[in-house]
Amino acid sequence: MTAENSALPIVDLRSDTVTRPTPAMLEAMFAAPVGDDVYDEDPSVRRLEEMAAARFGLEAGLFCPSGTMTNQIAIKAHTEPLSEVICEQTSHIYLWEVGGIAFHSGASVALLPGQRGRVTAAQVEAAIRPENLHYPTTQLISLENTHNRGGGSCYALEDLQAISEVAQRHGIARHLDGARIFNALVATGQRSEDYGPLFDSISVCLSKGLGTGVGSVLLGSAAFIKKCKRIRKVMGGGWRQAGYLAAAGIYALENHVARLADDHRRAARLAEVLRAQAYVAEVLSPETNLVIFRLHDHQPAADFLATLEQRGIRASSFGPQWIRFVTHLDVDDAMLGRVEEALGAM
Amino acid sequence: MTAENSALPIVDLRSDTVTRPTPAMLEAMFAAPVGDDVYDEDPSVRRLEEMAAARFGLEAGLFCPSGTMTNQIAIKAHTEPLSEVICEQTSHIYLWEVGGIAFHSGASVALLPGQRGRVTAAQVEAAIRPENLHYPTTQLISLENTHNRGGGSCYALEDLQAISEVAQRHGIARHLDGARIFNALVATGQRSEDYGPLFDSISVCLSKGLGTGVGSVLLGSAAFIKKCKRIRKVMGGGWRQAGYLAAAGIYALENHVARLADDHRRAARLAEVLRAQAYVAEVLSPETNLVIFRLHDHQPAADFLATLEQRGIRASSFGPQWIRFVTHLDVDDAMLGRVEEALGAM
Amino acid sequence: MTAENSALPIVDLRSDTVTRPTPAMLEAMFAAPVGDDVYDEDPSVRRLEEMAAARFGLEAGLFCPSGTMTNQIAIKAHTEPLSEVICEQTSHIYLWEVGGIAFHSGASVALLPGQRGRVTAAQVEAAIRPENLHYPTTQLISLENTHNRGGGSCYALEDLQAISEVAQRHGIARHLDGARIFNALVATGQRSEDYGPLFDSISVCLSKGLGTGVGSVLLGSAAFIKKCKRIRKVMGGGWRQAGYLAAAGIYALENHVARLADDHRRAARLAEVLRAQAYVAEVLSPETNLVIFRLHDHQPAADFLATLEQRGIRASSFGPQWIRFVTHLDVDDAMLGRVEEALGAM
Amino acid sequence: MTAENSALPIVDLRSDTVTRPTPAMLEAMFAAPVGDDVYDEDPSVRRLEEMAAARFGLEAGLFCPSGTMTNQIAIKAHTEPLSEVICEQTSHIYLWEVGGIAFHSGASVALLPGQRGRVTAAQVEAAIRPENLHYPTTQLISLENTHNRGGGSCYALEDLQAISEVAQRHGIARHLDGARIFNALVATGQRSEDYGPLFDSISVCLSKGLGTGVGSVLLGSAAFIKKCKRIRKVMGGGWRQAGYLAAAGIYALENHVARLADDHRRAARLAEVLRAQAYVAEVLSPETNLVIFRLHDHQPAADFLATLEQRGIRASSFGPQWIRFVTHLDVDDAMLGRVEEALGAM
Repeated sequence: MTAENSALPIVDLRSDTVTRPTPAMLEAMFAAPVGDDVYDEDPSVRRLEEMAAARFGLEAGLFCPSGTMTNQIAIKAHTEPLSEVICEQTSHIYLWEVGGIAFHSGASVALLPGQRGRVTAAQVEAAIRPENLHYPTTQLISLENTHNRGGGSCYALEDLQAISEVAQRHGIARHLDGARIFNALVATGQRSEDYGPLFDSISVCLSKGLGTGVGSVLLGSAAFIKKCKRIRKVMGGGWRQAGYLAAAGIYALENHVARLADDHRRAARLAEVLRAQAYVAEVLSPETNLVIFRLHDHQPAADFLATLEQRGIRASSFGPQWIRFVTHLDVDDAMLGRVEEALGAM
Repeated sequence: MTAENSALPIVDLRSDTVTRPTPAMLEAMFAAPVGDDVYDEDPSVRRLEEMAAARFGLEAGLFCPSGTMTNQIAIKAHTEPLSEVICEQTSHIYLWEVGGIAFHSGASVALLPGQRGRVTAAQVEAAIRPENLHYPTTQLISLENTHNRGGGSCYALEDLQAISEVAQRHGIARHLDGARIFNALVATGQRSEDYGPLFDSISVCLSKGLGTGVGSVLLGSAAFIKKCKRIRKVMGGGWRQAGYLAAAGIYALENHVARLADDHRRAARLAEVLRAQAYVAEVLSPETNLVIFRLHDHQPAADFLATLEQRGIRASSFGPQWIRFVTHLDVDDAMLGRVEEALGAM
Repeated sequence: MTAENSALPIVDLRSDTVTRPTPAMLEAMFAAPVGDDVYDEDPSVRRLEEMAAARFGLEAGLFCPSGTMTNQIAIKAHTEPLSEVICEQTSHIYLWEVGGIAFHSGASVALLPGQRGRVTAAQVEAAIRPENLHYPTTQLISLENTHNRGGGSCYALEDLQAISEVAQRHGIARHLDGARIFNALVATGQRSEDYGPLFDSISVCLSKGLGTGVGSVLLGSAAFIKKCKRIRKVMGGGWRQAGYLAAAGIYALENHVARLADDHRRAARLAEVLRAQAYVAEVLSPETNLVIFRLHDHQPAADFLATLEQRGIRASSFGPQWIRFVTHLDVDDAMLGRVEEALGAM
Repeated sequence: MTAENSALPIVDLRSDTVTRPTPAMLEAMFAAPVGDDVYDEDPSVRRLEEMAAARFGLEAGLFCPSGTMTNQIAIKAHTEPLSEVICEQTSHIYLWEVGGIAFHSGASVALLPGQRGRVTAAQVEAAIRPENLHYPTTQLISLENTHNRGGGSCYALEDLQAISEVAQRHGIARHLDGARIFNALVATGQRSEDYGPLFDSISVCLSKGLGTGVGSVLLGSAAFIKKCKRIRKVMGGGWRQAGYLAAAGIYALENHVARLADDHRRAARLAEVLRAQAYVAEVLSPETNLVIFRLHDHQPAADFLATLEQRGIRASSFGPQWIRFVTHLDVDDAMLGRVEEALGAM
């Protein structure tokens, strides 16, 4: 885990999930009042759930161990067997959640090709199955904002509104995978309160850009969250004194949102540097904190990653020739400088 | 159900599933020895299963009430939960079986865009998921030959061999949805015996081009079919004196295969007539007994079908502006003439 | 399959499923008008469904390949995931349908100990789960009449009414597995029309005592049956020209109900003979066409069955030391005499 | 949350899940080194998993948010669809995990009546389904030690050995729900190392008697735990910097096991006091830290609990007339005295 020059810390650009709590966040965790959350008696968990729900203009929240759990609970709660879920063909819920849509919900998927992960209202409408004995029933449209595979791309609010309108007209539930929703809000200047009317459920991750150790909050109506609580229980998400983790989430909501602009600035800088390198074939223009780029064919991705590793820099392969850099709380300007230097010296 | 001129029978081009047994087939059915198939004691069922298996070079067969059942049993038997099935994005198992892959097997799908429903070995190989905690495990590739949505298109044997080779190299099971496999064999001159080595299971439909009333046979190794029999039981396919239906299948295998060439000739003729019509924008060149064509945008499909219906001719809508004609045992040359006339007079 | 004395036919007491159509039934089958049932165009299927529904005072019917399918479709249609089904601990749906309640419906079971398979309203009420985050939700009570494992035992109508009342008060659906419902009606003198108000769905088997080759009809409200049709489709029960089999059902409903009294008389006679044998420890008093008895411990069941087999008589093992005899359409008084003789000569 | 006399803390006898970390445990938690557990990089999680596995003589461990998750993952990993799980009829996995056996694994259950939750090798052997097309396949026997519903009852090691032997002879996997396994070990003087050879998987809870806030560890072979990790992921148990919680587990394993004897002593004392009360009809003799007792019929349980609550004492209803008291880390001798006094004054 140490770099060539062992005096320097690792620059970990693999994911924003690798962040560790800051001393101030840790202090907040340590001081948190806790109780048995299965009995609804953990005051810190309750406060986090209420705070997150209020922020997004929804009634209630449910604190869970991961974003995969909040997404999969929501999909289960919104669908019945013999249903179909519409989502983008590279969305996290389809691609990286171990086939959970089929596993938990027995639901089929309609996979739309997006533009950097963004789908349009027209695409959604065309994908809704007509009534026919041979077809599953379309019951859910799930969006992802920012979109991971799309390189941290953001939706315009009017595009979300148009999709929401189509879904409502057809009686289809609307879920948002907000694994990096705060990045989208900060980058676009949108207001979280405007999201509540557009979605029946939102999954908000606290352990990525916000920098907590563990957890996501699922938001929705009070009745929906009540239903989800039983699903969380059967999935094994009924934890006890989770208030220590919830307190980190409260701290993050109060202190770590605005600073995401720094991550975005650093991502933009990395993209600029990458574009100047001869071995880079293509860089998806970063809209938030993800930088996805493609190496030229003669440059093996494994070699590239190994060379970075030797310089104390870690990144992720994202398909053949594709690399992903993620900026986050634990990457500062000094580290950015080291990465720039390493990229220039390849 | 009667035409404008009530003296004439309906020409039903909606599907080859609408055929009714011929007098000779009916005679064979009601002379059949039967027994309780749940106890393995129906001699006609046994004979059909053995005959079908032998014909395709596989060990054993299982007679079921429908092709959806044979397909879904096979998918279930080949996969475990947390798996993924590779298939073409318009394949019957994905599009028209009520989301059964997710419902019965809890399996995810990797959907490949085919060329008229045909996928390539390279596409299959690229769709196999690498080992990763976040991914379902690819366990099955399912092909369809002829391909319904592709307009009755056929695979070349060498393409099937290439796909089979990729699957075997990766330890992935191979299923064939042979809803219209005999149309493919007759059209290409391929031999059914050559299919056994290429697939771990084949679903052979008897109630489409072959003209029986009910049933499909699932083929595979003896161990595989034993496993499938329990799945058939839980799905409710454990029927009793099914020998009456099986006898129709035996009759069809012995008498109705070669005649499929007539259906293909008639489909080719229909395509030729359609291409000459100003209101037709596009005709998929028929390879077997399906003719899929697109009307010009100003020609509403519903009006077109209604006009045909007035002339005693039925066909199916196949998406906006698309129509499907199917030739089969119950469409003769006189009927063909009536369809040609109607198309010319639109 | 032949007896010691090959001139005599086998007496098959294993099950009433082994019956073969009579010549008159076969003639009715052969003459049936048929069509594609997936398109709702098989007139014989429609007529059977309507006739069965009317007979039981329910709105609609769905003809399926087996009683396991009608039961499992009903359970699926009545429940959602995270639910629980109440049934007797030796009921067919739990014991002999390959775990289908869990497999298809993901539902838990509450298993009640019955008195010869009969449960009481008080037992049902006590088994309903209170609302609690840790519990599945009770959504269905399923009864079986006559009860197979209970030795063909019948419910009194007032007991069914009491259970129905409890279920309705708690908002729980009510299903009846009527695999041998006509035996119950004939034995008790109850009227089929009185069953409709007591159940939300009834599965009526045609291939047991009624003597057809294949099939069961699921009955319920029109909306319920519409929902079930999609479930039948995904399970592979969407067959085509099933009218040949349906016609046998129509014939049986019209001609084979009253004669069940003969089967009951013969079963009573067998019980009487059995009670007189020293090697018989216990005989469940037959209420209909099933005779279940226990051999003394020193008398191995396998030897007993083998000895019967040598005399051209087949029966089923029903647990250690337990044997089941079933009387049916293909067991006449001459055969009965042969069985009596064989039992006496053991 | 405060008692009548607000100077006194609540005595919470509802469950041993309500405990909160001691100051020393809290200190250990917040000094813990952490990392991203999805990448296998959390050193505290790893250490806990290794420590727990070693203690029980098994190869590997998996730290999860709850005991329901560890149990349900194990059941899923040990079974395939169309299988059956044998367990006691009041076991936690069947009664209190929201029907998860059916929901996640699609598995049927064979429910054995235990003696205070304990089943015998003979019962297990009799419940194994013979091979038959109509039956699910028995694939798992799951035991619970101590047994919650049985009043904290313990198995003798030779009884576990006998059951293990039966299971192995039939090729059936063996799981132990060790929600309170340390109570069993302390009460009986058994050694944890002796459990490894008897089970294929053990679920060890850290948040009950051991007093941590969150978590259970699933133990098994390295191959089994690898398989379970993917199931944990799809269930949403793939958390990130879980090391804070794991550190509490490490502390508890090192410091909180021997002290369970105090909980047992206090439970014995409570039972003694209860037996002396006229309103108590029956007390299950406590073997560990659970005291289950039944009130006389004229004494409503709700009134009893309300009266206790007024005196600052909380307990749980455990069925009509039944009450459960649980002693744990947060119940000391002073509190015990208050409970004794309250019971005497009823």
